[in-house]
Amino acid sequence: MRRIGFVGLGRMGLPMAQNLARAGYEVLAWNRTPKEAEGLHPASLEEVAQTGLVLTMLADDRATEAVLPTLMRHLPPGGVHVAMSTLGVPYSRSLWTRHREAGQVYVAAPVFGRPDAAEKAALRVVAAGPGEKLAELKPLFLALGQEVYEVGEEPPLAHAVKLGGNFLIAAMLEALAEAYVLVEKNGVRREDFYRVVAGFFRSPVYENYGRILLERRFTPGFALKWGLKDVRLIAEAADTTHTPLPLGHLLLDRMLEGVARGLGEEDWTAVLRLVEAHAGVEG
Amino acid sequence: MRRIGFVGLGRMGLPMAQNLARAGYEVLAWNRTPKEAEGLHPASLEEVAQTGLVLTMLADDRATEAVLPTLMRHLPPGGVHVAMSTLGVPYSRSLWTRHREAGQVYVAAPVFGRPDAAEKAALRVVAAGPGEKLAELKPLFLALGQEVYEVGEEPPLAHAVKLGGNFLIAAMLEALAEAYVLVEKNGVRREDFYRVVAGFFRSPVYENYGRILLERRFTPGFALKWGLKDVRLIAEAADTTHTPLPLGHLLLDRMLEGVARGLGEEDWTAVLRLVEAHAGVEG
Amino acid sequence: MRRIGFVGLGRMGLPMAQNLARAGYEVLAWNRTPKEAEGLHPASLEEVAQTGLVLTMLADDRATEAVLPTLMRHLPPGGVHVAMSTLGVPYSRSLWTRHREAGQVYVAAPVFGRPDAAEKAALRVVAAGPGEKLAELKPLFLALGQEVYEVGEEPPLAHAVKLGGNFLIAAMLEALAEAYVLVEKNGVRREDFYRVVAGFFRSPVYENYGRILLERRFTPGFALKWGLKDVRLIAEAADTTHTPLPLGHLLLDRMLEGVARGLGEEDWTAVLRLVEAHAGVEG
Amino acid sequence: MRRIGFVGLGRMGLPMAQNLARAGYEVLAWNRTPKEAEGLHPASLEEVAQTGLVLTMLADDRATEAVLPTLMRHLPPGGVHVAMSTLGVPYSRSLWTRHREAGQVYVAAPVFGRPDAAEKAALRVVAAGPGEKLAELKPLFLALGQEVYEVGEEPPLAHAVKLGGNFLIAAMLEALAEAYVLVEKNGVRREDFYRVVAGFFRSPVYENYGRILLERRFTPGFALKWGLKDVRLIAEAADTTHTPLPLGHLLLDRMLEGVARGLGEEDWTAVLRLVEAHAGVEG
Repeated sequence: MRRIGFVGLGRMGLPMAQNLARAGYEVLAWNRTPKEAEGLHPASLEEVAQTGLVLTMLADDRATEAVLPTLMRHLPPGGVHVAMSTLGVPYSRSLWTRHREAGQVYVAAPVFGRPDAAEKAALRVVAAGPGEKLAELKPLFLALGQEVYEVGEEPPLAHAVKLGGNFLIAAMLEALAEAYVLVEKNGVRREDFYRVVAGFFRSPVYENYGRILLERRFTPGFALKWGLKDVRLIAEAADTTHTPLPLGHLLLDRMLEGVARGLGEEDWTAVLRLVEAHAGVEG
Repeated sequence: MRRIGFVGLGRMGLPMAQNLARAGYEVLAWNRTPKEAEGLHPASLEEVAQTGLVLTMLADDRATEAVLPTLMRHLPPGGVHVAMSTLGVPYSRSLWTRHREAGQVYVAAPVFGRPDAAEKAALRVVAAGPGEKLAELKPLFLALGQEVYEVGEEPPLAHAVKLGGNFLIAAMLEALAEAYVLVEKNGVRREDFYRVVAGFFRSPVYENYGRILLERRFTPGFALKWGLKDVRLIAEAADTTHTPLPLGHLLLDRMLEGVARGLGEEDWTAVLRLVEAHAGVEG
Repeated sequence: MRRIGFVGLGRMGLPMAQNLARAGYEVLAWNRTPKEAEGLHPASLEEVAQTGLVLTMLADDRATEAVLPTLMRHLPPGGVHVAMSTLGVPYSRSLWTRHREAGQVYVAAPVFGRPDAAEKAALRVVAAGPGEKLAELKPLFLALGQEVYEVGEEPPLAHAVKLGGNFLIAAMLEALAEAYVLVEKNGVRREDFYRVVAGFFRSPVYENYGRILLERRFTPGFALKWGLKDVRLIAEAADTTHTPLPLGHLLLDRMLEGVARGLGEEDWTAVLRLVEAHAGVEG
Repeated sequence: MRRIGFVGLGRMGLPMAQNLARAGYEVLAWNRTPKEAEGLHPASLEEVAQTGLVLTMLADDRATEAVLPTLMRHLPPGGVHVAMSTLGVPYSRSLWTRHREAGQVYVAAPVFGRPDAAEKAALRVVAAGPGEKLAELKPLFLALGQEVYEVGEEPPLAHAVKLGGNFLIAAMLEALAEAYVLVEKNGVRREDFYRVVAGFFRSPVYENYGRILLERRFTPGFALKWGLKDVRLIAEAADTTHTPLPLGHLLLDRMLEGVARGLGEEDWTAVLRLVEAHAGVEG
């Protein structure tokens, strides 16, 4: 039985680690605030690193950086760090350089899917890294999700793809929110509009988000403050490559407004509240 | 065999009229520039109106208004006008008022789908109007498409829904174009990104547009100048109801730029060229 | 003593008409809701038109159009209509055509300045029309303001210049509002920022608006709903000429939000309230 | 004669240092690439720091950080660092903390004005720091400029004010560029519009920028790449304080586009070229 390390037992990380345990891995798990969880073996960061194969699933660049020196110090030569969080492209690039200089292997494998998908092992993994390493890791990824997309040898590419995808989702969310309010101000019942949208796009993503917005369920699956974090990373990826991104910056203003107005802990679909407020509509 | 009138034999109207003929209707058809077409009976606007059931599928508000006085004069009392074009909400409202005052029935039934869907009778019809009239027209609509969505008794609602839907599509197009350029500037191959997007959204609409953008096929299915027309109607629906619509106005600027730069006759997916130009990327 | 007609005795029109009376003109004045005012002779639209020189100062295109047929019917051949309101460029063009076809002269002469400037005869007049007619009208314009700018023979040019100018003012207002909130969120006292801005730009316009924003005096000099009207005309001038105008559309969204939230009757500097609300700042 | 250190002899720093020499200071000057200049004494960073009063005028945060460790090491206890560059607020905050911890004094004193104003000692200094220190430095500041604005005891406030001011200037530039193109597409000659704008705002800043845009003089006074740098710092100040800044982000996209298209070395007024290109207008 392969022994691996897992760092970060949050809303995403916990079910992921447990799915790995269920798939037969011996999972040494570490969380900032210690957590007991069925199937996982609590361990120190050192022990986690010493397994030689560490997966990190942490909130952001900063949380990853907080554990990195310890991980790097204890990861054996040739050891592998698989970063599954949504990280910034420049930060991912720095991880790549540092691990390489330390004789370690860095793989980027961020995932698409909300916590319910993590639980059902229905994530989609976007992976980039050395070809043979990706091949080796494929069974592990398939224990987490239904699909693995390999996008190249350079790890930061996977994070760029992930951010591009999140940009599309955030854009869809903004578009849906504006559209709901627009058609309603023109007399349309939102549920009528929803039926047409669902029928037209025939996408589970539109159906899911469209319904959440319709039902105004703003209890967090994915908190707006994390939406802001992602949009910041998207803006960073644009800024550092001199890419104008007007829609991306519109999303950034929306998320900044959400947090400024105290909606940071609600689900990011709560942007609907902002669109409604601007239009003088009672939600 | 029911005899009906059809006005407007463009890229959408022609296959629609022919599908009706194929479904057993006797179609008296009129086009501004006369057109012979299999299965259709060329007729004057007067004759078309005298059938008592007239479908219009014209470019815009103005083209509809150009035929309206003649149609109204010759449509018998109780006669029905089904406006299938994408019209502005205020203009749709004026059609409603005028037909009612003339003792005529006005039904709005705009459609989703590009010319290839029109040919395959695979359109989606969004209908609004008096309930019994919609019931009566349902078989006719099903000869054009696979699905009919009824959204209320007031005809302009259907046009509002149609514009809301087009807004979502145009927003998706902008988001895809910005995303392709963003990830590419970060080193990603566009086709790698496409695979992930297609897998994630699992929507034929994303697949279709994503592929057109990937292959840079800008030969018009739906010309950018018509995209501008639609986005103008969306902005009008926002403006007349005091609805801020930042994403809608971003799309308006994009389409204005497209036409200003001479891309009006290309497919509206050519907004990708603009996004590339802003980012200093050779297409 | 020259006898002239004046239409529209609102916050701007009334002091303008009175300044003309004070300058020695016999002013036959008409207002939609009749108004007694010192120095002015109440008159019917017909009488006003029969003077042969009519100045209009009305809220917008629609209010102008409401009086136009009567004015045109009674304006003698060779009679002059001077449109001093801020009108849309396409509407100004239509006035030009119609007066020309009626053998009448059309001059556009919109003004810069708020009601206090109108009272002090300190407006700035932007005039366009036939050269000899502008020369003839110059003394009249100088009774209203301190400066006359001639911008060409085609009257709509003056309205285009006026809209371009209003665009700059609205943009300055948005910039000031965003800047005040930005520096305050970074710890700066707004009055400290104001002193620097006033010192740097050395412009009475920045001083005036900067101070109004600082003191939060939102009692209308120029109501936000009229700001919306102007920004709509600016957007129309962009739209009809295929000019992308991202900053203009940002202003449009801001004004739409203001009216949607019930601030239409406040001074348009109340956009500051919106900027504050978005940033979670108590005003 | 007071002996001081000056770091950074670029287009702004050189004339500033020379004005100080002319005002009677003994100026020990350091530049990354050594530079002989009348009135200045070339010195090492160490010597510069040992004077006990060091002014830095460097391109950005990074260039300042490059010299900081050496400066801090050699600045005597109680020594003063006056940062005159336009720095980011978070970076300014970090300088404040670090100097304080080292027993040194940090004063922020960024300036408004382009190189020609620096030469004429006509800058405007925005200063923040301990009150008695600002009083002491006032004569020095007045040797550089005509006006000193004190905005508080906390140094980062001065950088926040400076960024807020630059935001207003960049916004004015965008507004002027859009306005010129808008009125021209409506038939107006740009110079006619310029006369009206200059007359209305009565601001040397509008006159100066309006004329540069009119004459299309894009030889750099202030290079577009530095405009991008400033707008990035503005966006950072918004981001870190959760302040939506739609106009700021519009400016960011504009500057990113400018650099992406190879205009980074032109004057930042070259944004006009971009506005023209979007509108399909030949410059």
